[in-house]
Amino acid sequence: MEPAPGRGPHGGCEVSRHQGTDEAATPPNQDAGRLSRRGFLGGVGVAGAVGAGVGAAVAAGGASGSDAARSDPAQAAQVEFYGPHQAGITTPSQDRLAFAAFDVVTDDRAGLRDLLRDWTAAGVAMTRGMLVPGDSTTPTSVPADTGEAMGVAASALTVTVGFGPSLFDDRFGLAALRPSALVPLPALPGDALQPSRTGGDLAVQACAHDPQVAFHAIRNLTRIGDGAVRLRWTQLGFGRTSTTSVQQATPRNLMGFKDGTRNLKGEDAAAMARHVWVDDDQPWMRGGTYLVARRIRMLIEKWDGEPLAEQEEVFGRRKDSGAPLTGAREFDPPRMEARGRDGAPVIPADAHIRLASPEGNGGTSILRRGFSYTDGLDEAGLLDAGLFFVSFQRDPRQFVTLQRRLGAHDALTEYIKHTASGVWACPPGLPDGSRSWADHLFA
Amino acid sequence: MEPAPGRGPHGGCEVSRHQGTDEAATPPNQDAGRLSRRGFLGGVGVAGAVGAGVGAAVAAGGASGSDAARSDPAQAAQVEFYGPHQAGITTPSQDRLAFAAFDVVTDDRAGLRDLLRDWTAAGVAMTRGMLVPGDSTTPTSVPADTGEAMGVAASALTVTVGFGPSLFDDRFGLAALRPSALVPLPALPGDALQPSRTGGDLAVQACAHDPQVAFHAIRNLTRIGDGAVRLRWTQLGFGRTSTTSVQQATPRNLMGFKDGTRNLKGEDAAAMARHVWVDDDQPWMRGGTYLVARRIRMLIEKWDGEPLAEQEEVFGRRKDSGAPLTGAREFDPPRMEARGRDGAPVIPADAHIRLASPEGNGGTSILRRGFSYTDGLDEAGLLDAGLFFVSFQRDPRQFVTLQRRLGAHDALTEYIKHTASGVWACPPGLPDGSRSWADHLFA
Repeated sequence: MEPAPGRGPHGGCEVSRHQGTDEAATPPNQDAGRLSRRGFLGGVGVAGAVGAGVGAAVAAGGASGSDAARSDPAQAAQVEFYGPHQAGITTPSQDRLAFAAFDVVTDDRAGLRDLLRDWTAAGVAMTRGMLVPGDSTTPTSVPADTGEAMGVAASALTVTVGFGPSLFDDRFGLAALRPSALVPLPALPGDALQPSRTGGDLAVQACAHDPQVAFHAIRNLTRIGDGAVRLRWTQLGFGRTSTTSVQQATPRNLMGFKDGTRNLKGEDAAAMARHVWVDDDQPWMRGGTYLVARRIRMLIEKWDGEPLAEQEEVFGRRKDSGAPLTGAREFDPPRMEARGRDGAPVIPADAHIRLASPEGNGGTSILRRGFSYTDGLDEAGLLDAGLFFVSFQRDPRQFVTLQRRLGAHDALTEYIKHTASGVWACPPGLPDGSRSWADHLFA
Repeated sequence: MEPAPGRGPHGGCEVSRHQGTDEAATPPNQDAGRLSRRGFLGGVGVAGAVGAGVGAAVAAGGASGSDAARSDPAQAAQVEFYGPHQAGITTPSQDRLAFAAFDVVTDDRAGLRDLLRDWTAAGVAMTRGMLVPGDSTTPTSVPADTGEAMGVAASALTVTVGFGPSLFDDRFGLAALRPSALVPLPALPGDALQPSRTGGDLAVQACAHDPQVAFHAIRNLTRIGDGAVRLRWTQLGFGRTSTTSVQQATPRNLMGFKDGTRNLKGEDAAAMARHVWVDDDQPWMRGGTYLVARRIRMLIEKWDGEPLAEQEEVFGRRKDSGAPLTGAREFDPPRMEARGRDGAPVIPADAHIRLASPEGNGGTSILRRGFSYTDGLDEAGLLDAGLFFVSFQRDPRQFVTLQRRLGAHDALTEYIKHTASGVWACPPGLPDGSRSWADHLFA
C-alpha cells in the first residue's frame, strides 16, 4: 500500500474539508476509524443538507443502526466474526464467492505477523459492514478503503483465512508448528492442474450475498498486504452449489443437477465434531479445520449431448426433482441395494451418489461449500465453466480418500477435470478483538 | 447440438418413464413443450407423490402461477419479451450480466435464418421462466434445456440480440440491408484491444437478477446455435454499475465512485426518442438501436494509491456522497462554471463529469448499461477487473464522439484501458409470436 500521509495508527476521523466544515478531531474510542459503510453515507447526506460535520457523528454508531433500516434482508444480514470457529465454514452458504490464494513475498517474520493482524482488523470491520480501518476521509490521504462497497451493508460477508503447507517451510521459523496433516495434496485421478492455479502460502475465502462485497473484501486484503503478499490466483464463484444449512434448498450445479442433497449441515454439531473440527494435531489448530479447493471444469458441450437417462445414471438422481433413482422425492434416502427387473442396480455401480456416499466410503464425510463459476472461453472456444469445489474436513485425507475413489470410478469423471487445487489449514475462531490471526503462529 | 432421438418439431411432452407412468401425448397447443421451470418442478413433486403424469398438467400453466408463489420479488419478476423495442435496453438494469459475441460459421442463408428463429423461441421461453422449447422429459432424448435454471423463476431475464457489421458482408446476401451507421468502430484513444475480444457477427446481452439465469441463457443459445454459430468471446458482469430507471439508486463502480448519476432514464420517452431509438436508416431498424460494448479495465493498484482529493478531482464528484464538487448532494446539478478562491474551476477542466456531460458535447447523450467485472489476474499478477461498459444510442457515432473526447482529455484515462470492443445493430422489438428475429433480415 502506498504511504498514506497523515494517517494515524488507527486511522483519524478528520472531517473532509470538502464537506465545507472546519477540521475536527474525533474523540478517541474503540471504534475510531471504523465507519459504517452505510452509516457513513447516511451521515454524509445529513451533513450535506445542514452543513454539519460527518465523521464524529457516525463513528460510534456501528452498522446495526443503519442495517435495521434496510429493506433487503440478504444485504442487511451480518455474520459474527468472533467465535470458537471461523465464520464461513458452517455459516449457511452465501450466494457469491471471491476466493484468493497468496504467496508471501516478504521473508520477514514480523512482516507476516503484522499482515495477519491487519487482515484480522480489516476482516472484522468488513464483516460488520464498516470501512476498512484507517483514514478514509481526509482529502490529502490515500483512502484506506477502496470504496466500491460504500452504501452496501454487510451482506452476510464472511472472511475465512487458511495457512498453506508452504507457509511452514524455513522462511518464517514456523516448521515446528506445521500440523502433521497439512501436506500438499498427492497427485489424484482427474488431475489436470494448472500450476499457476495451484497452492499458495495463504488463502482467503470471502463469501457474501452481494458479489461486490465479496470482491471488495479480497481486493482490500490484497491491497493491505502489498509488500508482504502477492496474489497467486483468484476465483469468482457466481452462485452457490452447496447446502450447508437445514434451512437451505439444494441448488443446481451447471450440469443441471441437484448435487449435495446429503451434504453435512452446519447445525449438526455432532457431525461437525466428527468430520470437520480438528481436536488433536497442533494445539493452535484445535477447533480449526482444513480447506480443500478444487476448480472442477465441466466439459459442458459433451455433457449437453447426453440423453437424459444417461445423465441421470451418472448422478444416480433424477434431473427434475433431484430424487434418487430409487425414490420419488429429493430427500428420500437412496436404496443402494435396489435392483431393476433386469437384475442390474437401479443406482448404477459407478453413479456419483453411490461412490460419494458415506456408506460407500467407510463413513467418510466432508462439508462441501462449492460455487458455480464461468471464466469465458478456452483456447478452443469452449466455455470454461464448472464448479469451484470447496470442502472443509478435519483431515485433508478425507478428501483424498473420496477423490481417489471418485476419480477412478465415478461416471462423472468422463465429464470433468480438476484444473486448480490447494489445501490450507484454517485456524480456529478468535474469541474477541484482543486476539488476531497472527496469534495462532506468533503467540 | 447432438441429434435428439424422438424429438418432435416443437418438442414433445411425453411423460418420462422415470416417473413411473405410461407415456401420454400432450394435447397440441401453443404452449406444448414450453414447461415452466418452476411449474414443471411443482408438477414433478406431485407426480412423485401420487404417481400421476406430469407434462400435460403443467404445460399450459405458464410461469405466472408458480411465480405468484415466490417470496423473492427479484426472482419472480418477469420482463415482457414482445413490444416496440427489445427488452434489456430501457428495462431497469438487472443486477447481473452474461454477454456473448458469436461468429456465424455456416455460410447458408437458411441456416442463419433458422438460428434466429430458434433463438427467438428460446428467448421468449427463457424470459418467461420456461424451459427451452423441445423435449426435456423423455429419458432417451437429449434434454433441450441444460437444466441449471430449473426451479429458478424468470429473475427479470432479458435477452437482447444485435447484428454486427460483419454479418452484412457477402456471405448471406445481406449487404443491401446494412444500416449505414453500422460500421466497425474506428481506432479510438484509450484502445488496448485484444483481437480475440473484439467484434463478432452477432451479440447477445442476457441480463437477470440471478447470475445462473443469465449464464443459462447464453449457454443455451450457444448450444442451440451449434453448427451455425461459434462463441467468439464472452463476459460475465457481476454487478450493475448503471442506473437506467428513475426508481434505481446509483451503484458504485470498482473505483468506488457513483458514476452515471446523470445517465438517461428509460422512463424518459422523449430522451429515448432523441438519443436511443433509430427512426431513419434501414426500414427494418426503425425502433432499434445500436449497442456498443467496451471492456474497460481499471488499473486498480494505481488508482488505489491516489489520495482522496485527487480521485475526486478525476471524477468531479465526492466519493462518499456522489455529489458534484460544486454541490452537496448526488443529484445537485454540477455547476461547471464555478471557480474556487484560487480562480481555478472547482470541477477541473479534465474531470470526467465535465467531459462526459451533454453540455460539453453538443448535447450528445447515450444510455449506459454497464456492469462490474473481474476475470482473475493478468500475467503480472494484477487484478484484471473493471467496467464492462454497454451503451445504447441511435447512432454509434454518439459513442465515438464521446470517447474521442474522453480518451484524449479525461483525467480518468490514466487509470483505465479499453481491452474489448464491439458494435451491433439491435433490431426493434417483435409484436408477438408470429414474428422472429429472422424476419428483420429474411422477411
